[in-house]
Amino acid sequence: MRIDRIDGGVTAPQGFRAAGLHCGIKATGKPDLALVVSDLAASAAGLFALNLAKAAPVLVSQDHLSRSGGQARVVITNSGCANACTGPQGMADAREMAALAAEAAGCAVDQALVASTGVIGVNLKMEAIRTGVPRAVAALSVTGGADAARAIMTTDPFPKDAAVQVTTDVGAFRVGGMAKGSGMIEPRMATMLGYLTTDAAVDPATLHRALSDACRYTFNAITVDGEPSTNDCVFALANGASGVVIDEALYPALFEGLRQVARELALGIVRGGEGATKLIAITASGAATEPDAWTAARAIANSLLVKTAVHGADPNWGRLVAAAGRSGAAFALDQARVRIGSLVLFEGGRPFDERAPQAARYLQGTDLEIEVDLGTGGAHRATVWTCDLSAEYVKINAEYRT
Amino acid sequence: MRIDRIDGGVTAPQGFRAAGLHCGIKATGKPDLALVVSDLAASAAGLFALNLAKAAPVLVSQDHLSRSGGQARVVITNSGCANACTGPQGMADAREMAALAAEAAGCAVDQALVASTGVIGVNLKMEAIRTGVPRAVAALSVTGGADAARAIMTTDPFPKDAAVQVTTDVGAFRVGGMAKGSGMIEPRMATMLGYLTTDAAVDPATLHRALSDACRYTFNAITVDGEPSTNDCVFALANGASGVVIDEALYPALFEGLRQVARELALGIVRGGEGATKLIAITASGAATEPDAWTAARAIANSLLVKTAVHGADPNWGRLVAAAGRSGAAFALDQARVRIGSLVLFEGGRPFDERAPQAARYLQGTDLEIEVDLGTGGAHRATVWTCDLSAEYVKINAEYRT
Repeated sequence: MRIDRIDGGVTAPQGFRAAGLHCGIKATGKPDLALVVSDLAASAAGLFALNLAKAAPVLVSQDHLSRSGGQARVVITNSGCANACTGPQGMADAREMAALAAEAAGCAVDQALVASTGVIGVNLKMEAIRTGVPRAVAALSVTGGADAARAIMTTDPFPKDAAVQVTTDVGAFRVGGMAKGSGMIEPRMATMLGYLTTDAAVDPATLHRALSDACRYTFNAITVDGEPSTNDCVFALANGASGVVIDEALYPALFEGLRQVARELALGIVRGGEGATKLIAITASGAATEPDAWTAARAIANSLLVKTAVHGADPNWGRLVAAAGRSGAAFALDQARVRIGSLVLFEGGRPFDERAPQAARYLQGTDLEIEVDLGTGGAHRATVWTCDLSAEYVKINAEYRT
Repeated sequence: MRIDRIDGGVTAPQGFRAAGLHCGIKATGKPDLALVVSDLAASAAGLFALNLAKAAPVLVSQDHLSRSGGQARVVITNSGCANACTGPQGMADAREMAALAAEAAGCAVDQALVASTGVIGVNLKMEAIRTGVPRAVAALSVTGGADAARAIMTTDPFPKDAAVQVTTDVGAFRVGGMAKGSGMIEPRMATMLGYLTTDAAVDPATLHRALSDACRYTFNAITVDGEPSTNDCVFALANGASGVVIDEALYPALFEGLRQVARELALGIVRGGEGATKLIAITASGAATEPDAWTAARAIANSLLVKTAVHGADPNWGRLVAAAGRSGAAFALDQARVRIGSLVLFEGGRPFDERAPQAARYLQGTDLEIEVDLGTGGAHRATVWTCDLSAEYVKINAEYRT
């Protein structure tokens, strides 16, 4: 098996077309409507927000996936309005969006998935979507993935797409994807909006398993602000156009293809986090259990004091220890160790502050690695990606609506 | 029973003296050493950090309270250095601080309590403390509470002290207190540094119970940044100088006196939170259980998106709903309700956005009330106090050490 990164996003695999354009939801005139269509029947899988205040499109997509038995031909997405907390009207609007998309793709309505992102608590401008869908259908193309990736953005500073070609003994298939992120990001078993396409042939159950496995170490291992959203979802569509059929022997190839694309998208979300200037990989090692490793890594990755210290390039290992110590994970201070880049700053109960100036220089970079060994002697570890917390994050979120 | 607010802090009750001065730990020359002494034998109780990376002074004070059976005569505190993550030397330093204080107060060493606050991972300048303690002893006075409250400050913008007189049928007693806060504040079953004194006569077990009960709704119900620290502690000393003996009938008077002083100090910590411009009371009501009410209130109070929205006076009720929905507490979106001040902005699945301008004007105030009814039909409720998140918080914490 060989995996090569290739150009493109959701339309890199064969048999997928996409489009993105401005239909009239965003006042700025920026793109706000995206269509992704599979020209062939496709297996589909989704992971959704665990937030109990689920948005209408999340509920509709879950329902459709369940009713279709994991089949989908089209995903319709609008940005600029989350269609969350919008009551019965919101549900009716999400259903109408799905119906418009199904009609455009020529498929049953339960083979249409729908997603929305933007402000919570505002009803969709359905007239914009009604006039926008036919225009999007006319614009569908096998190079439209880039337009679609732009049309799902909210406060994202750049579009996020990625694709790979997976070459196996029995042939090659491709995996493509796009995502949007920025704020309200701490996906738990789901994420903001992520879309993965593949031209491998995969049955729905296997696709769901591979999507879950791939997301565990990618979309589900990132945080911007510790805020799981109302609209999180990741979709995967597999249409078999490559002729490569995924069986148990090829499962690792599918998993790895999905994982690599999902990882690039997920790290893109963190890099493009609201106000972010640095991507930080936080590893908790020496954990007594795997849940403990995740718990500690998440606590450190969401610590405001850690995120502000890194923003200021301050190698303040005490804040790392304090966050690990309060995380709820088993922790042994005397055996704990803190590493910033390649520099150990605390070990065996003793600080190495003479290394602080060198660590401060390292922290001025934009791609950072920090490891906290919890000191329990356990072999479990987990990595969570986060970003620094800047005054710009406050500015963006204090001014988002007003 | 009547409770009157009176001037002063820890030295407002009879039989307590205090001092605060600069001994040489802070480079700025600001006060950094505080002594609080009871002239009589006193019952003592403490609540301590749950953080597993406990600082040396926390471990020493816990040990002393346990060995003395709840008796203490003196509390010594330094600011500017947390004496946390400092290994065996840190433990030796904390023990020496306690011994110096005990000698000064003329009591057994296990009747001395010790606390530190400031930067983590730096050893104490013991020479400064050795020369500082005799000077502090010479400065002890019955009006020294204000100096002590200044000497325990780190980034606090103002000192926090408070006192009340509790008048009962059998006589009057007083409760005084001081606290420091600012950053790394989300006490869980404990707090940053809080000190309560009373001249009521209370046995140690009753004092511990009253302290726990009072802290539950005060120090334990506040958050600045969701960061339980390594050095959290609250101490209570009761020396009986008033002649009022607390029995079961008078327990409510003691509880209420402690609660009122602790509440004023706790709200002062939030008001003086790093970068804070607003005090926000977040109430979660309509909860299925009391733990659910606390869980939801804490999740909302620690939400960066809520804190930044309030900072920008944006009545973004969608973020309140999203935080409640992801909190883990039972939540029914269709029955949920959001109130900002006296204005209901979301109820029965429907937004009332026409009220948003009025809510935005309300949010320009500095003392705010927000309520989220979780919609479960339950009768449980909890209030957590938090502050807004400003660019100044980021600035303070990105520049704290460097």
